[in-house]
Amino acid sequence: MSEKFSKIAMRMKSNVIRELLKVTSKPGMISFGGGVPDPETFPRFEMAEIAKDILENEYRYTLQYASTEGDPILREEYIAMLKRDYGIDGLELDDLLVTVGSQSALDLVGKIFLDEDSIYFVSKPVYLGAASAFSLRSRNYVYMDLRDDGADLDELEKSLSEIQARGDIEKVKFIYAISNFHNPGGVTMSLEKRKRLVQIAEKYDVLIVEDDPYGDLRYEGEPIDSIFKIGGVDRVLLLRTFSKILSPGLRLGIVIGKKEIIRKMVMAKQAADLCSPSLTQRLAARYLQRHNLTEQIKPTIALYKEKKDLMLSELEKHFGNMEGFHWTRPDGGLFIWFTLPEGFDTGEMLELGKAENILFVPGVAFSLDDTCKNSMRLSFCLPPKDKIIEGVARLKKVVVEYGTEKNLL
Amino acid sequence: MSEKFSKIAMRMKSNVIRELLKVTSKPGMISFGGGVPDPETFPRFEMAEIAKDILENEYRYTLQYASTEGDPILREEYIAMLKRDYGIDGLELDDLLVTVGSQSALDLVGKIFLDEDSIYFVSKPVYLGAASAFSLRSRNYVYMDLRDDGADLDELEKSLSEIQARGDIEKVKFIYAISNFHNPGGVTMSLEKRKRLVQIAEKYDVLIVEDDPYGDLRYEGEPIDSIFKIGGVDRVLLLRTFSKILSPGLRLGIVIGKKEIIRKMVMAKQAADLCSPSLTQRLAARYLQRHNLTEQIKPTIALYKEKKDLMLSELEKHFGNMEGFHWTRPDGGLFIWFTLPEGFDTGEMLELGKAENILFVPGVAFSLDDTCKNSMRLSFCLPPKDKIIEGVARLKKVVVEYGTEKNLL
Repeated sequence: MSEKFSKIAMRMKSNVIRELLKVTSKPGMISFGGGVPDPETFPRFEMAEIAKDILENEYRYTLQYASTEGDPILREEYIAMLKRDYGIDGLELDDLLVTVGSQSALDLVGKIFLDEDSIYFVSKPVYLGAASAFSLRSRNYVYMDLRDDGADLDELEKSLSEIQARGDIEKVKFIYAISNFHNPGGVTMSLEKRKRLVQIAEKYDVLIVEDDPYGDLRYEGEPIDSIFKIGGVDRVLLLRTFSKILSPGLRLGIVIGKKEIIRKMVMAKQAADLCSPSLTQRLAARYLQRHNLTEQIKPTIALYKEKKDLMLSELEKHFGNMEGFHWTRPDGGLFIWFTLPEGFDTGEMLELGKAENILFVPGVAFSLDDTCKNSMRLSFCLPPKDKIIEGVARLKKVVVEYGTEKNLL
Repeated sequence: MSEKFSKIAMRMKSNVIRELLKVTSKPGMISFGGGVPDPETFPRFEMAEIAKDILENEYRYTLQYASTEGDPILREEYIAMLKRDYGIDGLELDDLLVTVGSQSALDLVGKIFLDEDSIYFVSKPVYLGAASAFSLRSRNYVYMDLRDDGADLDELEKSLSEIQARGDIEKVKFIYAISNFHNPGGVTMSLEKRKRLVQIAEKYDVLIVEDDPYGDLRYEGEPIDSIFKIGGVDRVLLLRTFSKILSPGLRLGIVIGKKEIIRKMVMAKQAADLCSPSLTQRLAARYLQRHNLTEQIKPTIALYKEKKDLMLSELEKHFGNMEGFHWTRPDGGLFIWFTLPEGFDTGEMLELGKAENILFVPGVAFSLDDTCKNSMRLSFCLPPKDKIIEGVARLKKVVVEYGTEKNLL
């Protein structure tokens, strides 16, 4: 049958992180791999109560197909939350779409915007899930290097002006940006850059796709206005999710954007999965009504901050005095981007890591062109604190073993 | 922004049925439109108990990302059920994939098999959801007319032999068939045709995609072996779903097929939605373990059978003596395909229907080439019995009004 597969199927690679998940459960393994939240942090008893209630009493909704747009109560509550917590005002029901997690939103964005010759901008390193979804539609990505304050916008402007000069500007569909606590980069785009990004997008009439799955998990510093708030609904499509704050098991993403775009995404979603699960949509809606999500995640934030600080201090302890080793210092989210000197290949090191019972995600997983080989993504949210200490020590062992063997140290 | 949309986005049409759902709730409306099951038939109290239990006690699974392949317990239980209830034996975990409803399975099938020039076979009329998913990838469908015993296989053989003669047989990717109680046709493929279909597929080395969402809802006659059972895992990809027997609100489809194909679908799913909802997957798994689904749907089957018989007798009463009016007599499922004389345009009639508070799905919704205009799909499962009687009477009124105005009666 394999000769029957489509061209895009032939170039599909298995998602490295999803594959890593399978060895995570090996006894003794410490994983800095998956970007998975700690299920202990979710309000399971409250959710259990609500689930029972809405299955018994709202079964005509929860056990039926939902509208493709999504549960109206959930969308209403979400609009209220965006207004109350983020100062985003003036949204209507038809500006929102509920998707099966943010991954599905990325798939729909790819479908409605990208032809084979379409151009889009992503950061380098790039979020793996976005890269997979977009690159199935078009391989014409353009990189912006990720800096400590977000994507390099000089590179963006230079590329856009070149593309315009060669008459291809109409082919540029969007700029994809994770604004807060980048996955895998760990960095946050500064307010100045957000404003400049909007200006550039307006100048070249390009859409910004702002992905913000981690924004609510801020451990330090003041929240920064979203690109969506700065650029407005006509310029920015905002992707949000319940996966990191209420549970990924619900598979609920929220897309906020211009009605015309949402409408087209709804049509694409009809052919993709008909509708998001009514049970989990109503569960999230009733949770938002009956509980305070901002309060609920405060202990989570405190816990993750401790883990993040611990991992940073352990990295400092083991690698602080080693030349060419550096890492990002995130103000929130789940990830640290750890870069080793040139010559280290974290993909090769993964096997050593497995042998030493320590997992990380090789940098190459976050590149579309087989680069980023001397970096890795470290996630600090899931392992207990003693495992973070032990895990960084094992990582050091792997680095020394590999570096010595390859004459890199 | 609209000039930025992709080519496939430009040709997306909104799903007529999804749009119809929006007027269904108008007071006084009787809908024969949506193929939605009756939520009263689902075991809500049992599901409520399980949901509470698995959120409290299995939260490390239900509130976490699932593997892309799906809940292993659900897949195990499903394999046991396929063996016990359908005599399908020898399946392993890796032969199964849990999708976000069958629609998502259709989307993944389209992605992994179809290029722009790929050829696939569908019945005429065709299931709207399959047509939407496949036609986003390729417009090169070939029709097989739907007969009372399933698709016209003479047409299939003729087309395949022509395609082979012109050297394009490698482009033929699959034959799509709804084996039981076709949507929208209401007909069931005979055992003889199933066997012959497998022979033809083997002769031309083409995959069969068997879609069987309604097979468990049989009201009359003996179950017929699935095409999958006849043709085997190397020849047939089987799509099944919990939507009609446990609840569409869970969004759970099951794909059963060759490991190599399932593996490719897993990769496509990683980029489409990462994983199906862990909460609803485990809910279905525990339901299968703790309850007997076959017993649970018996009252549903009795109820739907009564409704189906009632609609058939009402159709007979109102249209039995009218020349050129005919309809299918399903042995199960949710749909009757009602064909009017040439000249009737059920799409135009829909507005009259709305005015008379009666909804149906115009036949054109089930065609890829704007045909089937003188047919409509009638669903009998959701309206109460008195509404079925009243609804068919209203339908008669609409038919007479339209037919008189257009001089068709």
